[in-house]
Amino acid sequence: MPPLKHYLPVLDWGRDYSRTALSNDLIAALIVTIMLIPQSLAYALLAGLPPEAGIYASIAPIILYALFGTSRALAVGPVAVVSLMTAAAIGQIAQQGTMGYGLAALTLAFLSGAILLVMGVFRLGFLANFLSHPVIAGFITASGILIAASQLKHVLGIPGDGDTLLETLHALALHLGQVKPVTLVIGIGATGFLFWVRKGLKPLLRRLGLGPRTADIITKAGPVFAVAVTTLAAWAMDLTERGVAVVGTVPQSLPPFTLPSFSPDLLGSLFIPALLISIIGFVESISVAQTLAAKKRQRIDPDQELIGLGAANLGAAFTGGYPVTGGFARSVVNFDAGAETPAAGAFTAIGLAIAAVALTPLVYFLPKATLAATIIVAVLGLVDFSILKRSWAYSRADFWAVATTIVVTLALGVEIGVSAGVILSIALHLYKTSRPHVAEVGLVPGSQHFRNVLRHRVETLPGVLTLRVDESLYFVNARFLEDLVLDRIARDPAIRHIVLMGSAINEIDFSALESLEALNRRLGEQGIGLHLSEVKGPVMDRLKTSHFLDELHGQVFLSQFDAWQALGGKQDRDRAAE
Amino acid sequence: MPPLKHYLPVLDWGRDYSRTALSNDLIAALIVTIMLIPQSLAYALLAGLPPEAGIYASIAPIILYALFGTSRALAVGPVAVVSLMTAAAIGQIAQQGTMGYGLAALTLAFLSGAILLVMGVFRLGFLANFLSHPVIAGFITASGILIAASQLKHVLGIPGDGDTLLETLHALALHLGQVKPVTLVIGIGATGFLFWVRKGLKPLLRRLGLGPRTADIITKAGPVFAVAVTTLAAWAMDLTERGVAVVGTVPQSLPPFTLPSFSPDLLGSLFIPALLISIIGFVESISVAQTLAAKKRQRIDPDQELIGLGAANLGAAFTGGYPVTGGFARSVVNFDAGAETPAAGAFTAIGLAIAAVALTPLVYFLPKATLAATIIVAVLGLVDFSILKRSWAYSRADFWAVATTIVVTLALGVEIGVSAGVILSIALHLYKTSRPHVAEVGLVPGSQHFRNVLRHRVETLPGVLTLRVDESLYFVNARFLEDLVLDRIARDPAIRHIVLMGSAINEIDFSALESLEALNRRLGEQGIGLHLSEVKGPVMDRLKTSHFLDELHGQVFLSQFDAWQALGGKQDRDRAAE
Repeated sequence: MPPLKHYLPVLDWGRDYSRTALSNDLIAALIVTIMLIPQSLAYALLAGLPPEAGIYASIAPIILYALFGTSRALAVGPVAVVSLMTAAAIGQIAQQGTMGYGLAALTLAFLSGAILLVMGVFRLGFLANFLSHPVIAGFITASGILIAASQLKHVLGIPGDGDTLLETLHALALHLGQVKPVTLVIGIGATGFLFWVRKGLKPLLRRLGLGPRTADIITKAGPVFAVAVTTLAAWAMDLTERGVAVVGTVPQSLPPFTLPSFSPDLLGSLFIPALLISIIGFVESISVAQTLAAKKRQRIDPDQELIGLGAANLGAAFTGGYPVTGGFARSVVNFDAGAETPAAGAFTAIGLAIAAVALTPLVYFLPKATLAATIIVAVLGLVDFSILKRSWAYSRADFWAVATTIVVTLALGVEIGVSAGVILSIALHLYKTSRPHVAEVGLVPGSQHFRNVLRHRVETLPGVLTLRVDESLYFVNARFLEDLVLDRIARDPAIRHIVLMGSAINEIDFSALESLEALNRRLGEQGIGLHLSEVKGPVMDRLKTSHFLDELHGQVFLSQFDAWQALGGKQDRDRAAE
Repeated sequence: MPPLKHYLPVLDWGRDYSRTALSNDLIAALIVTIMLIPQSLAYALLAGLPPEAGIYASIAPIILYALFGTSRALAVGPVAVVSLMTAAAIGQIAQQGTMGYGLAALTLAFLSGAILLVMGVFRLGFLANFLSHPVIAGFITASGILIAASQLKHVLGIPGDGDTLLETLHALALHLGQVKPVTLVIGIGATGFLFWVRKGLKPLLRRLGLGPRTADIITKAGPVFAVAVTTLAAWAMDLTERGVAVVGTVPQSLPPFTLPSFSPDLLGSLFIPALLISIIGFVESISVAQTLAAKKRQRIDPDQELIGLGAANLGAAFTGGYPVTGGFARSVVNFDAGAETPAAGAFTAIGLAIAAVALTPLVYFLPKATLAATIIVAVLGLVDFSILKRSWAYSRADFWAVATTIVVTLALGVEIGVSAGVILSIALHLYKTSRPHVAEVGLVPGSQHFRNVLRHRVETLPGVLTLRVDESLYFVNARFLEDLVLDRIARDPAIRHIVLMGSAINEIDFSALESLEALNRRLGEQGIGLHLSEVKGPVMDRLKTSHFLDELHGQVFLSQFDAWQALGGKQDRDRAAE
C-alpha cells in the first residue's frame, strides 16, 4: 500500500513549509482573491444561479483541493465551460430562480464529486483519454461561442435564453426592439475596455517599464477595474431607474451548510450530465495542472487529481456551490503571482470568505452587463478555429471529429456535442482498423530488413508472398485478411507460400483466430503453405494455447529474414529436385 | 461501373442453365418444400403470427433472393432467431392476434429490407464484423434457450409468454396446475421422437445400407412424419375436444398483396429492432452461404448478399410475410439434396404456393404441440456452451463478451443482449489498446533482428533505450507513451538516446502527434535524443505533413539495425573524444 501522504499530499509539502513560501503564497492569494470576486459572480450568473453561489463554490472546494490535490498551483472553482454545462443540465429540470434550481445545482456537484472520487479510487483516469485533443479543442471553441451568445441578453438588457446557438439568437431577435440603451452602453463600453486591456494594456505597461509578470497581473485585474467603475456609475447616477439590471442584494454570510437532494429521480436524470461535467472538468483541470507542473518539473498524478477534484465538488455540494474544477485563468494568475504551495489556495479561500461576509453589499449596484462583458471577453479567448486547419492538414478523421463536435455543440447543445465528438472519434478509429493497411514486403538489398514492395526497391522470392498486416487482427477486421489472401491467390496461381509477417500484429483475438484457422484450412486444401514470422511474444503465448500452431501448414520463423532464407533455400532444393 | 450481371447474378448462371441442373434443382426443390411446410408454420407460431404468414414469408422472398443473391444454395425464409426477435420487437407494440401485430410484422420486414438494401448499396457489409464470433455464438446459444422456453407453453397447453427466460418460466409456473395431459403426451412424444430421429435414425438408416446423403435427407423429413401422425391422431380421436390446441383454419390462398405501415411513429419505434434483425440475419445468412460456397469453391459477395436479402425482406413486407433471412437448416437440405442454382429456390417457391392453395386444409388438425416440438428440437441444436470454455482458454476478453451476451440475452431479452455483447467487445478492445504492450528490445546476436530483452538473449547499447510500442498511437493511448518514457528516464539517468521502433505503430493520430511533440520538447530540454526507426510508409507520409520531423531532436532510421549502427558508432566516437 502506498504511504498515507500519497493520498493526502498536504503531508508532503506541509512538513517543510517555509516563511518565504508563506509570504509568496500570501501575496498570490491576495491577487487571486481580487480577481476571483467578479469572476465568481459572473460564472454564477452564467450558470443561472444567484451570484453568491459563485463565491461559495470557490471557498470550500479550494481548501479541499489543497488537501487532496497534487498540483501546487491549480486554483479550483467555477469555470466558464462547466458553468455553461451546469446551466444546460439544470435548465431541463427546473426553472431559474426557483429553489429546485439551486437544489439541482448542489445535486449536480454532489454527483460530479462522487463520480470523480469513484474514478480516482478505481484509477479510471485513463477514461479521460477518450476525449481526443481535437474533440476537446472543438468543444471548447463551440462552448466559448455558446457562452458569449448566452451573455448577449445581459449586454442588451433583453430576454434571450436557449440551449443552442440558434435558440439563443432567435430569442434575442424576438426582443431586439426592447434593447435598453443605458445597459447597452455599459455592456459595450465594458466589453471594449476589457478587449483593450487584453490586447493593448500589457504592451503599454511594458513600455512604461513594468516587468512582464507585473504587467500580466495588472492586465488580469482589468475586470476588477471595470466592475468598480460601472458599479460606482450605477450607484451615483441611479442607473437602476434607467433599466440597468444590477446584481442586487447578496447575503452577507459565510458559505451555508447545504444538502444536495438524494431523490433517485433527480440523481438519475442528472447522472449523464454529471458524468460529462466530471470528465470535461477533469480534462480541463489536468491539462492546466500539467502545463504548470511542467514549468517547475513537478509531476501530477492523474488518479490523485480525480480524488482532489472529487473532494472539491463534494465540498461545493455541501456549502451552497455548484460543480467546480481547476480553472485556466485563475490557476495561471496564481502561478504567475508566485504561489508556491496549495496553501495559497487556502489563503485565497480565507480572502473570499472575508469578501462574502464583508464586501457583498458593495456589489449591489454592479451591473449584470459588466459581468456579462467579463465573461464574453474571457471566453472569446477560448475560441480558436485554427484546430480545424491543423487537423485538416494532418488527418481527415481528426478534422471530421473536430468539425462534428463544433457543429453539433452549436446546433444541439453541449451534452450532445461532446458525446457526438467522442462517439465519432471511436467510430472513425474502428472504421480505420476495419480496413487495415497491408503491404507486400521484400528484402532491402544488403540488409535483413523488409519493406513494402511499392515504396522501396526490394527483392522478392518467386512463389512466396510475404504480407505485412499493419493492424492487430480482431473481430472488426477478422475476415478482411482471409478475403484478401484468398483473393490474391485466386489472381496469382504461382503462389506456393504465404508468409504473414507479424511485426505489426499486436493482438489476435478469438474471432481472428477462427478466421486464421479457416484460412489455413483453405490454403492447405490448395497445397499452399501458410507461414508466420516475427510474431510477438504476447501474441505467440496466446496462439500456443490454441491448436492453430499444430494445424498450421507451414512454419513459424523468429524473424522475416529466417523465413526468407528457409523458403529461398527450399525453393532452390525444389528446383534441384525437378 | 460493374456489369449489370454483378447486380443481377441471375444473368450469370441463367445463361448456361442445363437440363441436368434443371432436374437436380427440381428434386432438391421437392425435398425442401416438404421440409419447409411444417417449419414455416412453426416459425410463424414462434413469431406470434398466424401460421400462413410463415408460408407466405417463404415464397416471394425465395424468388427475389434467387434473382439478386450470390449464393447458389442459400434458402431464404423464416428462421428461428429472427422469428424470436420479431416476436420480441412487435410484442412491445401490439397484442398478438390483432391487426396491428400483423401490420407491425410487415413494417418490420419492410424496414429490414430497406436497411439491408441501403447497407448493400453503400457497401456497408463490414458493419456485420462488429458482431464478433464469440458474441454471435453466445447470442445464438441464449436465443436457442429462450426459443425452447417460449415453446413450452404449447407443449404443456398453458399460458407462458415472456421476453426474458425468467418471465417465461414464471408465467409457466403460475399455470402449472392447468397442464393439459393429452397435449403434454403429444408434445413430449413428438419431442422425444424428433430427438431420436436426430440422434438414432441416421445411424440406423446407414446400417440399413442407405447412402449418407439419402440418410440425411430422410432424417431431415422427421418433422413431416411427426406432423402427419399427430395430425391424423388429432383428427381421428377428436383430440380438440380433449383440449389439444390445433392450427385451425388456414386460408387457402396465394400470398396476398399487403402494405406495411408508413406511420413515422411505428417506423421510429421499430427502427432499432429492424437494424438488429437485419444485422443478425445478415450475419447468420452470410455464414451459411460462405460455408456452402466454400464446399464448391464458389465466392460470395457480401455487399451483393445485402441486396439479395434486402429484396427478399421487401418481398416479405408486400406479400403477408415477416422478416426473413438465409436459414441454416433449409439451406443445408437444399445443398445436400443437390440444388445447383438459385432456380431450385424458385421451384421451392412454386411448391409452397401450391401447398398454400391446396394443402392448407390438411393442417387444420395439426397440434400446436407438434410444431412446438419441432422448434424445440431444432433450436436445442443451436445451444452450444463450449464457446465459453474455448474462449476462456484463449482470451479472457472474448470470454467476457460471450458470457455477458448469454447472461444479458437470457435476463433482459434479445435486443439488449446482442447490443451489450457488441458494446462490451468494443469497450474491451479500446481498453486493451489504451494500455499497449511496450517492449524494450535488443539485437539478436548474429542477426539484424531486434526482440524483447525480457524474452530473448539480446544485446543492447549502453545509454540507448530502444522501445517497441505494440500499438497504434491514437487518442485513447496518446499520453501513455509520454508518461512511460518520462518515467523511464526519471529512473535511469544514464539514458542519452531513446529510439522508438515503429514496426507496430500503424497510425499516429493528431492527439498522439501532439503528445509526441510534447515528449520531444521535454527530452530535448534534458539533452536526450529522440529517434525513430522502422516508421511505416503511410505513417511517415502523414508525419511529413506536420512539423514534428523538423523539430525532432534525433534522427529517423529506415531500419532498427541502421539505428543500432549509427548510435553505436556515435558512442564509440563520443568515447574516443572523451
